[in-house]
Amino acid sequence: MPYSPLTPDILAQLVRIAGPKNVLTDPERMEPYSHDEVTDPAYHHLPEAVVFVETADQAAAVIGLANEYHFPVVPRGAGTGLACGAVPIYGGVVLSLEKMNRILEINEAALYAVVEPGVRTADLQKEVEAKGLFYAGDPCSGDSCFIGGNIATNAGGNRAVKYGTTRNQVYAVEVVNPTGKIVRLGARLQKQSTGYCLDQLIIGSEGTLGIITQATLKLLPKPQHKLDLLAIFPSTEQAIGVVTQIIKAGITPTCVEFMDNITIKSVEKYLHETLQDSDSGNYLIVEVEGTSEDDMDDKAVLLDEICTANGASSVLVADSARIWQARKAFAEAVRAESLIVCKEDVVVPVDQEPQLIDAILALAKKYNLITRIASHAGDGNIHLNILKNPDLTYEAWQEHVDANQQELYTLIYKLGGRLSGEHGIGSKRKVLMEEFTNPDELEMMRAVKKALDPNNILNPGKIFDVE
Amino acid sequence: MPYSPLTPDILAQLVRIAGPKNVLTDPERMEPYSHDEVTDPAYHHLPEAVVFVETADQAAAVIGLANEYHFPVVPRGAGTGLACGAVPIYGGVVLSLEKMNRILEINEAALYAVVEPGVRTADLQKEVEAKGLFYAGDPCSGDSCFIGGNIATNAGGNRAVKYGTTRNQVYAVEVVNPTGKIVRLGARLQKQSTGYCLDQLIIGSEGTLGIITQATLKLLPKPQHKLDLLAIFPSTEQAIGVVTQIIKAGITPTCVEFMDNITIKSVEKYLHETLQDSDSGNYLIVEVEGTSEDDMDDKAVLLDEICTANGASSVLVADSARIWQARKAFAEAVRAESLIVCKEDVVVPVDQEPQLIDAILALAKKYNLITRIASHAGDGNIHLNILKNPDLTYEAWQEHVDANQQELYTLIYKLGGRLSGEHGIGSKRKVLMEEFTNPDELEMMRAVKKALDPNNILNPGKIFDVE
Repeated sequence: MPYSPLTPDILAQLVRIAGPKNVLTDPERMEPYSHDEVTDPAYHHLPEAVVFVETADQAAAVIGLANEYHFPVVPRGAGTGLACGAVPIYGGVVLSLEKMNRILEINEAALYAVVEPGVRTADLQKEVEAKGLFYAGDPCSGDSCFIGGNIATNAGGNRAVKYGTTRNQVYAVEVVNPTGKIVRLGARLQKQSTGYCLDQLIIGSEGTLGIITQATLKLLPKPQHKLDLLAIFPSTEQAIGVVTQIIKAGITPTCVEFMDNITIKSVEKYLHETLQDSDSGNYLIVEVEGTSEDDMDDKAVLLDEICTANGASSVLVADSARIWQARKAFAEAVRAESLIVCKEDVVVPVDQEPQLIDAILALAKKYNLITRIASHAGDGNIHLNILKNPDLTYEAWQEHVDANQQELYTLIYKLGGRLSGEHGIGSKRKVLMEEFTNPDELEMMRAVKKALDPNNILNPGKIFDVE
Repeated sequence: MPYSPLTPDILAQLVRIAGPKNVLTDPERMEPYSHDEVTDPAYHHLPEAVVFVETADQAAAVIGLANEYHFPVVPRGAGTGLACGAVPIYGGVVLSLEKMNRILEINEAALYAVVEPGVRTADLQKEVEAKGLFYAGDPCSGDSCFIGGNIATNAGGNRAVKYGTTRNQVYAVEVVNPTGKIVRLGARLQKQSTGYCLDQLIIGSEGTLGIITQATLKLLPKPQHKLDLLAIFPSTEQAIGVVTQIIKAGITPTCVEFMDNITIKSVEKYLHETLQDSDSGNYLIVEVEGTSEDDMDDKAVLLDEICTANGASSVLVADSARIWQARKAFAEAVRAESLIVCKEDVVVPVDQEPQLIDAILALAKKYNLITRIASHAGDGNIHLNILKNPDLTYEAWQEHVDANQQELYTLIYKLGGRLSGEHGIGSKRKVLMEEFTNPDELEMMRAVKKALDPNNILNPGKIFDVE
C-alpha cells in the first residue's frame, strides 16, 4: 500500500484546515507522538505531521484530504495505549484529539454526559461525582487516558465485573468516518432495534473505522456504600476459584483483582512500603458496593465465609487507599524493573483462569522468562508482563518470548480465550491476531474495513492488514 | 434484483441437503410461513419452498446453493415477529430453524447456556430456573418466540430496564454467514478487545447478515426476592415522570410498565375481569428485586414515597400473577378488537416520554385514530396500536396512519428517539427507516451489508433496500 508522502502542498492545506499553531512537522516536537506507553524503541515511528483538531469539521476535512491525496491518518488520544494502536507505522498524519477536551453537558436529571474525546477519564469521574453521580468506566490509566481512547479500545479496567467495559457505558458516538462524513451512531436509548448496531462496531475498532469526536455516556447514581476486602490465599487456584463462587452466591462484586506473591514483592520494592500480610501468599482484592450499612455487613460476612471455606489464610477489610495504590502501581513497578517488557493482556473465561495461570507459570519456567502477573481475576483478564532477561540479547530474549506466545495462545484459544482483554491489538499484536483468529471471522472483519474505508486511510496496519 | 426462481433442479438439491421430509413446496402447507404476527394480509407472501434445517452444515449448504443460483433465503424462528422480518417478500426459501431446538448445555458452575436457535425462550427460562439460575431475556412473546429470533431482532421485553435487551444476554453466536461460512463470533468472556465486535453487529441485524445456528447465553443466579408494585396515577405525565426519580434514588427496577386507562379497559373486557382500581387512572407497574426481605421492605417504602409524592392516588403491592396477566394480555386484547392494526414500536429517551405520549394523544385526536397504548415506561419504549376505524375503508384509514407517522416520527427523531424499540424494522417499516435514518449512517449500513453479502442472498429487502 504505497501512500503518498505529505507534500508541501498537502501540508499547506492541513495548515489551512487546522491553523498554523495546530500543525507540527518538527521531528523533535513530534517525538512524543511517535509512540505510546510501549517503551521498546523498536515500536516507535515518527509521523510526517501532527495535526491537532479542535472540531469534528476539521477532522472531517483532514480525512477528506487524506482520501484525495492518499495518506494515512492515525487518530490519537492521550497516547497511553499498550499496543501501538496510535503509532503511525506508515507515517502520514497523527490526528491528535487532545484539544477537543470539553465536557459539554452533564445532565443530572436524565443521567448522561456529553463529552469531547480528549476529556481525561479521571476528570469526568471527578466532575460527575461532585454532583452525586457516577461514571462506571475506570481503566487503570484513568488519571491520564482520554475517554476517546477508552472508547476506541473498549477499555476495561477495575469495575468491569459489575459494570462491563467501556462499550457498556456508551449511549452514542459522533464519528468522522473513513470517507470524511460526520455521523452520529447509537442513541440515548435503553433499547432499540432500528438497523445495524454500528455504534458497537465502531467501539473497540481502535480508530480504524472512525474518529470519535463526541460521546454520550451513561451516568449512574453514585454508589452509597463501598467496601474492599483483601483475602490472602496460599495458592493461586484457591484465590481465583473464589470468583465464580462469589457470583453464584448472588454478590456481584465491582471488581476482583489478583496479584501473585512475586508481583506483590515487586510493588513493595517500588513503593518502599510493606504491604498487609505480604509474606503469606497471593492477594485477592474484592470490592463490593451496597445499598446500606446492613447490606455491606451482610456481604462482608458472606465473602469472609466463601474465602475462608476456599482456603484463605486471612480475610481483612482492606485499607482501600493503600491497597489500590499498590494495585495501580503494578505497571509502574514493572517499568522500574525493566524498560523492555512484553505485556500480554490475555483473557479467558473466568472458570478457565486457574488452568491458564498454571500454564503461564509452567511456560515461564520452560522458557526461562521473568514474569510479573496481575489479573482482573473477576473477568478472566490477566496482565502477564515478561521482563527482558538482563543476561540475554534482545534478539535471544525475543525468541523466548515468541516461543512462549505460540504455546500460550494455542492454549488460550483452546480455553475459549482471546489475545487481548482490554489493551487492544494495535500493530503490536497484529501478527498474532492474524495467526490465531478464525480465518472466516478475519475475512468478515477485512470485508467490513474495506467497505467502510475503501482507500485504507484510517489507521492502516492496525488489528490486521487489509490484504 | 431479479432472483432466480427455484427450479426443479434447485429443489432436488435442497432435498438432497435437508432430506425430503424437510422441504415443503405445497402452498397450503407453506401458508403459515408466509407471514408473522402481522395479521394484515397485505403483508403476507408465500415462499417457493420451506426448508427445515437440523444442523448448521445444512444451513451453510443452502446458503452455498443460494449464492450459486441466486435465490433469496429468509431465516425464520417462531414467526412471532411484528415487522415482517421473516416474510419472504421476494419468494425463494424460508429457512426454518424450528427443528434446531435443543438446549445443548446448562453450565451451573460457570453460569452459561449453549442453545440452538429454535429453543423457545420460556423453555430455556424454565430449565435454568429449575436449577436456581436465571436467563434475563424476557420478551412479552416469551411463551412462543425462539431464542434465535430474540437475538436476530435484539428483542427487548419486560426486564430490559435492569438487564438490558437480548444483545446484553449473549456471549457468542455461531452463524452461517451470507457466503455460507460457519463462523463463531464473540466469546464467553466478560471483556475483550480483540478485533471488531462482529457479534454485536450480527445481533439485531434481523437475519440479513447471518443465520444464527447456536448461541452461548449468560446466566445469573436466580433473584431471591421480588415485588410488584402497582401505582395508579391520574395523569400520564405523573406516572412516567416517576421513572427517572426511581433510578436516581438508587433503585434499578427490573421493569416499569405503563398502561393508560383506555388500554386497561380494553384488557378488562378481553379478560372478562375487573382489574385493581381500574376506574381511577393509569397503571404503572414497578417490579423490583432484592437481596433480602429487609431490602425489599426498604425498597417498597421508598417507592411508595416517590410515587405518592409524584401524585399517585394509590400504591398497592400488586397481585403479581394477575397484573402481569393483564399486561401480557395487551396484544391479545388489541387483536380481539381488530385484526387490522398498525403497531408502532417507538422509543425515546425516558425523560422525553411524557412529551411523546402527549403528542401521540394529540395526533390521535387530529387524525381521528383509535389507539391502544402500553409502554415499557422504564426504557422509553411505547407500543402504540392504531386500530382500523370501522367506518373507514382500508385505504382511507391507511392515509390517516401515514399522515400520523410522518408527524410522529419527525417529532420522535427530534427527541432523540428511533423507529423501533424492540420489534425491528423488517420490511414493514423499511420505507420509514430509509426516510428517517441519517443518510450517511444508512450508507454505512448498506456498505456493511454489501460487503458481507455481495450477492444480496440473505433476507433481502429487510431493514433497507441495498440499492
